[in-house]
Amino acid sequence: MKKIKKKYMTGIQSTGTPHLGNILSVILPTIKYINKKKKKNLFFILIADLHSITNYKNLFLLKDNIYKTAAVWLSLLKRKKKIIFFRQSDIKEINELFWYLNCFYPFNRLKLSHSYKNKSNKNINTGIINYPLLMASDILLYNINNVFIGKDQIQHIEITRKIAKIVNNKINKKIFILPKYKIKYNFIIPGIDGRKMSKSNNNFINIFDNKYILEKQIMNIKTINKSIKDITYNDIKKTILFKIYYLISNKEEFFFLKEKIKNNKISFITIKKMLYKYILIFYYKERKKYSYYLNNKYIIKNFLYKGFKKAKIIAKKKISFIKKKLGLNI
Amino acid sequence: MKKIKKKYMTGIQSTGTPHLGNILSVILPTIKYINKKKKKNLFFILIADLHSITNYKNLFLLKDNIYKTAAVWLSLLKRKKKIIFFRQSDIKEINELFWYLNCFYPFNRLKLSHSYKNKSNKNINTGIINYPLLMASDILLYNINNVFIGKDQIQHIEITRKIAKIVNNKINKKIFILPKYKIKYNFIIPGIDGRKMSKSNNNFINIFDNKYILEKQIMNIKTINKSIKDITYNDIKKTILFKIYYLISNKEEFFFLKEKIKNNKISFITIKKMLYKYILIFYYKERKKYSYYLNNKYIIKNFLYKGFKKAKIIAKKKISFIKKKLGLNI
Repeated sequence: MKKIKKKYMTGIQSTGTPHLGNILSVILPTIKYINKKKKKNLFFILIADLHSITNYKNLFLLKDNIYKTAAVWLSLLKRKKKIIFFRQSDIKEINELFWYLNCFYPFNRLKLSHSYKNKSNKNINTGIINYPLLMASDILLYNINNVFIGKDQIQHIEITRKIAKIVNNKINKKIFILPKYKIKYNFIIPGIDGRKMSKSNNNFINIFDNKYILEKQIMNIKTINKSIKDITYNDIKKTILFKIYYLISNKEEFFFLKEKIKNNKISFITIKKMLYKYILIFYYKERKKYSYYLNNKYIIKNFLYKGFKKAKIIAKKKISFIKKKLGLNI
Repeated sequence: MKKIKKKYMTGIQSTGTPHLGNILSVILPTIKYINKKKKKNLFFILIADLHSITNYKNLFLLKDNIYKTAAVWLSLLKRKKKIIFFRQSDIKEINELFWYLNCFYPFNRLKLSHSYKNKSNKNINTGIINYPLLMASDILLYNINNVFIGKDQIQHIEITRKIAKIVNNKINKKIFILPKYKIKYNFIIPGIDGRKMSKSNNNFINIFDNKYILEKQIMNIKTINKSIKDITYNDIKKTILFKIYYLISNKEEFFFLKEKIKNNKISFITIKKMLYKYILIFYYKERKKYSYYLNNKYIIKNFLYKGFKKAKIIAKKKISFIKKKLGLNI
C-alpha cells in the first residue's frame, strides 16, 4: 500500500436526494479534488444516516433516502478507487467515540452552538443538541486532515477542533489530529426563493428529479416582475436566477448567456428554459446513472459494503487506541 | 436452554470499590434475589465504566476501579451461573442505542432531570446531561423487566420508561419492554457524617478496605457529644451509628446490641468497636476473596470475558432488530 499523504472527508445527511445546494457547495468540489490524480490522498465519503434520524418525521423514508444520497454520489464520482464510501450507521465505533467526546465537552459550550441556540425554544430532541459531537466523532475517528463542508458547517469544525484539543490536553497529545476545513463558496447557495437552499425551506432544485418536476422547480425561481429590457444588466446580475445559472454552468455556457442578455435578446422565461435544458444536457449521463443505481440497489449495497469493510478496519484500530489511552483496556 | 422467566439488571459505576451504601442498597438485595433458586430468572450485572468516565478527574484510576468494582461483586456472589456479568464499554451496541434514544428524547424533558438541574450552573461535561439516556440504553438493550436501584435512581427508570414509550409509539409497539424497578430501602443510606453516603461526599465506609482504614472510617461515625448513659434509648435510635449498625448486622447481632444499650452497659466507642469487629468477622471470607481477586486479575478478566460473550450475542440481536424497525437495514 502506498503511503497516504492526507485524509479528506465529507458527509452528507441522507434526508433525500442531495439538492443543487449540496452538490455545488460540497459534492462537486470534493469530486474535483478526488480527480486530481497526482496526490496520494484518501477520501472518506460518509452517508450520514445517523444524523438524519434527528429528523424523525421522515423516518419511514430513511432507507429510501440512504439509497438516493448514495446514488447521487455514485453518479457524479468518476474515480472510485481513492475513496472509502460508507454509511455512518455501519460503524458502531462512531457511536462509541461519541460517548467519550460527550464526557469531555463542556455542556456550556455546546449550548453556544447554532444547533442549540437557533432551536432551543422549540420542542427538539436531544440528538439535535448533541449533533456537533457526533460529527466530531466521524472526523476524529478517521484522523481526517481536511473536511469539505458548506459555509454553515464551519462552527462544527471549530467544535471538532476544540474537543480534540481538550482530549489531547487532558489525556494524550497523540490521540486526535486537528482537522481543517475546505469551503468552496464563502456564501450560502440560494434556493429558488432567495433564502438558503434547503429541504426544510422546500426551495431546492433537484437536478436528479424527473424532467417535469425539475422544470417546475426552475420555472419557480423568483425573478423581478419587469421585462428584462426595462432593467439594467447590474440588476439582472443581482437576481437569484442569474446567480444559480452562474454557479451551475460552465464558462462557455455562461458567456453565451451573458451575451444574450447584453444584446437584450431574451426574457427571464427564456433564461429559465435555457437553464433547464443546460441541466438536462450537461447532466444527461449522471441522470441516467442515478436512475440506473436506484433501479439496481444491490450495486449501491455492494459499494457501501466494500466501504464498510475498509472503514471498519480503520475504526476498530483507532477506537482501541483511544480506549487504551483512556485506560479502558483491562 | 430453559425458558427465561424474567430479566433483572443492576449496574454499578466503577468509580472505586463500591462502598457500604452501594452494597446495602443494591448489591446485597440483588444477590439475595439471585440466590432464590426456584425462579428461572436471568441477571445482568453491569460494570458501568462508561458512566464513570463522566468524572474524568479520576480517569487515571479507571482501570483500577473497574477491577475493584468487579472484585466486590465476585466476592459477594455465591451463585454465578444465572448471571451475565459484564462491562458496559465492551458492548458497542449500548452506544449505538444511546444515539437512537438521543434522537427521540425531547431535550426539554432531559433538562428537567436531577442530573441536569442539580448541576446546571457548574462547568459540567455533556455526558453528565446525557447520562440518563445511556442508562436507558443499558436497560432497554437487554429487555430488562426489573432493575435493582437505589432510591436516588428512580427518576432514571422513569426516563427509561418514557423514552421506551416514545419510541414504541412512534415506531413500533414491540421495540422496547417497559422496565420496573426494585428498591430495598425507601431512604438514602447515610454516610459517617449523616449526609448521603457517597464517594464525592467522602463519608463512606468501605468494608473491603484494609483493617486500619476501615477502623478509622467507623471511628469517625458522627455521634452525640454526650455519654450514652445520659440520653434516652430513642435518642440513640436516631444516631447514624445506630442506623448503620441496624442496616449491616443480622438479627442476632442487632438484638445483642440493643440489649447492651438498654442495660446501659456500653459507650458509643464500644458500639463502634463492636461494629468494626462484626464487619471483620461477618465479611471475613468476602474480604479474603476480594484481595485474592485483586491479586489475580486474570480471573476477573476471565469472568468479564465470559460475560461479554453472552452479553454481546443478545446485544447484536436486539440492535439489529431495532435498526430494522427504524428502517436502517438496507
